[in-house]
Amino acid sequence: MTTWTLARRAQKMNPSVIREILKITEKPGIISFAGGLPSPKTFPIAEFAAASERVLREDGQAALQYASSEGFAPLREHVAASLPWNVDPNQVLITTGSQQGLDLVAKVLVDEGSRIMVETPTYLGALQAFTPMEPTVVSVASDEQGVDIDDLQAKMGEGADAARFLYVLPNFQNPTGRSMSEARRAALVERAAALNLPLIEDNPYGDLWFDAPPPAPLTARNPEGCIYLGSFSKVLAPGLRLGYLVAPASVYPKLLQAKQAADLHTPGYNQRMVAEVIKDGFLDRHVPTIRALYKSQCEAMLAALEKEMAGLDVQWNRPDGGMFLWVRLPEGMSAIELLPKAVEAGVAFVPGAAFYADGADPRTLRLSFVTASVEQIGIGMAALAKAIRATLGG
Amino acid sequence: MTTWTLARRAQKMNPSVIREILKITEKPGIISFAGGLPSPKTFPIAEFAAASERVLREDGQAALQYASSEGFAPLREHVAASLPWNVDPNQVLITTGSQQGLDLVAKVLVDEGSRIMVETPTYLGALQAFTPMEPTVVSVASDEQGVDIDDLQAKMGEGADAARFLYVLPNFQNPTGRSMSEARRAALVERAAALNLPLIEDNPYGDLWFDAPPPAPLTARNPEGCIYLGSFSKVLAPGLRLGYLVAPASVYPKLLQAKQAADLHTPGYNQRMVAEVIKDGFLDRHVPTIRALYKSQCEAMLAALEKEMAGLDVQWNRPDGGMFLWVRLPEGMSAIELLPKAVEAGVAFVPGAAFYADGADPRTLRLSFVTASVEQIGIGMAALAKAIRATLGG
Repeated sequence: MTTWTLARRAQKMNPSVIREILKITEKPGIISFAGGLPSPKTFPIAEFAAASERVLREDGQAALQYASSEGFAPLREHVAASLPWNVDPNQVLITTGSQQGLDLVAKVLVDEGSRIMVETPTYLGALQAFTPMEPTVVSVASDEQGVDIDDLQAKMGEGADAARFLYVLPNFQNPTGRSMSEARRAALVERAAALNLPLIEDNPYGDLWFDAPPPAPLTARNPEGCIYLGSFSKVLAPGLRLGYLVAPASVYPKLLQAKQAADLHTPGYNQRMVAEVIKDGFLDRHVPTIRALYKSQCEAMLAALEKEMAGLDVQWNRPDGGMFLWVRLPEGMSAIELLPKAVEAGVAFVPGAAFYADGADPRTLRLSFVTASVEQIGIGMAALAKAIRATLGG
Repeated sequence: MTTWTLARRAQKMNPSVIREILKITEKPGIISFAGGLPSPKTFPIAEFAAASERVLREDGQAALQYASSEGFAPLREHVAASLPWNVDPNQVLITTGSQQGLDLVAKVLVDEGSRIMVETPTYLGALQAFTPMEPTVVSVASDEQGVDIDDLQAKMGEGADAARFLYVLPNFQNPTGRSMSEARRAALVERAAALNLPLIEDNPYGDLWFDAPPPAPLTARNPEGCIYLGSFSKVLAPGLRLGYLVAPASVYPKLLQAKQAADLHTPGYNQRMVAEVIKDGFLDRHVPTIRALYKSQCEAMLAALEKEMAGLDVQWNRPDGGMFLWVRLPEGMSAIELLPKAVEAGVAFVPGAAFYADGADPRTLRLSFVTASVEQIGIGMAALAKAIRATLGG
């Protein structure tokens, strides 16, 4: 019997309590507000079918061959041209979903014990991507406007222990749905530059605004100090695994080498399909339909919350876009303890504790308003309120 | 100006001299035996087009949605059923190319300074995938039969410094084209088990045999002691980036978590396309056509070598399959120094030095016989011989 010696990092990659808990949300027939799954109604299947047919007919051999690690040139050019600051296509690296961008960033910037900073709460997948490189993750306080700049400075560290970066989602954040205000963005970029603190800006949801686009990205304000991560998962479909990063010339070559070592390149066929779908301004016509759908679903969820939570000390925010809203349960309640009861009542969510590196607020939970239908949202919210009332009464 | 502090591992990820040299092989019009590119003539474009159409029509929403990190169940089942030992589909993890399998293995099994062993020479991409985890790479001597078992034992290390694994390509190895004999396989598996040494068996080329299939995989002989890496890149097409690994239950959960953190999952659309193409025994009809093509190209290259290298002290092997053969230049010559002259004469190869962790034999070089046509092979070999003669005469 061979005994396998695991790397130390593998010990840190334990199945989280949360992940185990979430398995119960996979019960068939349940109304789930748990997953961060875009509405499949928005996937442009006919356009993908036409693009696939054309790519294979006109460029099949190249689409199916090994390709460069940087990515398909027309797609890199499209990404560069679509961003609201001056981006050279040579700064764009196509990634296998923006999740891979997080993996590459960690590989290139994080040593064992390196201090890195995250908003709190933050995207669970980022914590998972950073963990294998064994950083010391420091949570920076955040409020409705975004990252607390003074807390950031207080936790920055000095000399060799200075934070390698701050990871931040300024637009319709996962998990809270919050967006960073213009004033806070300006202050953050200024303070970060003064502190010599690189920013990792993750922007999967920025196009999903309801009434007005969010303020300019952090990276647009200081491109040399930021790595920007973007994705086609939320505006086209996640199943093709297509994301990208934009990095300054001082870091790009290392990210490229890490990319090559990780999977050689992102599927060229997928890159060509997406380049084909978007080349004639398709996203300008398509994304507004996603915005309208998600806005109506968000409004339905807010209305259902108003109705069903009446009289309960439950709080929630009103997102300006994205996929999620953030709920706080009554004093003394735990979202983790509530979840099995909610599942029994037919509804699922993600306990907020999943999204904290430390110091979780046990009363919080995340609701996705994009996957379930408006009708399901109504039924699900009633079930959730019932589970809360039963817990309070019990 | 923000100063980016890079991880130590990033310093080790330097652009290799070899990679810089290989840029000259990208000169337009050159006959290249350098790349490990499958012949695009073998890509089943019509079958992919039909599969894509069907997948999007029948299962479009699921194909384009987020999916499980383990992979698409029918594809995992196909992989398990196709392997010549008893494999539970739950042991199969679909990866974004088998290159990703190497990345995951390194993350889960390698600490900074961990001893790992490789054949010498070995696959350059594996060295690149392992490097970010900062192992101490130990080269194990190899001969025409495979890994030298006594050298393996001598370099195994003890206690905390015992090697975490041996990485080995038993079939039509990259770069040498060599295959491990039945006797050597049996001896290696026995000795590895006695030494408590896990084996990482990489088998991208095993199906590409010319006259007879290679002996049974190492993993078939001791599944609990091996991780097996496979790929659809050489039997279908590399541009979809589809590979897999098979791992024992004691390691699988950690590899799965590393996979989830790396890119969430491999594109579900691509997995469904391949599952659709292969479901009715397509590979049984298709792979023999690749074998026949590659055998004829290999024979053409061997004949051209016989003809063009006559009178030169140049040695080469006769592979039983795969994509590569291995050449040794006359005493005193360096393949790295020869390359610019060969490129000037219109032909490219990869200097063997690219494939050694240390102690490179400067006289060696790798030729791929699968990308160029038979006619190009003739012209290219004449050009290579001319460059060698010019060097010897100069």
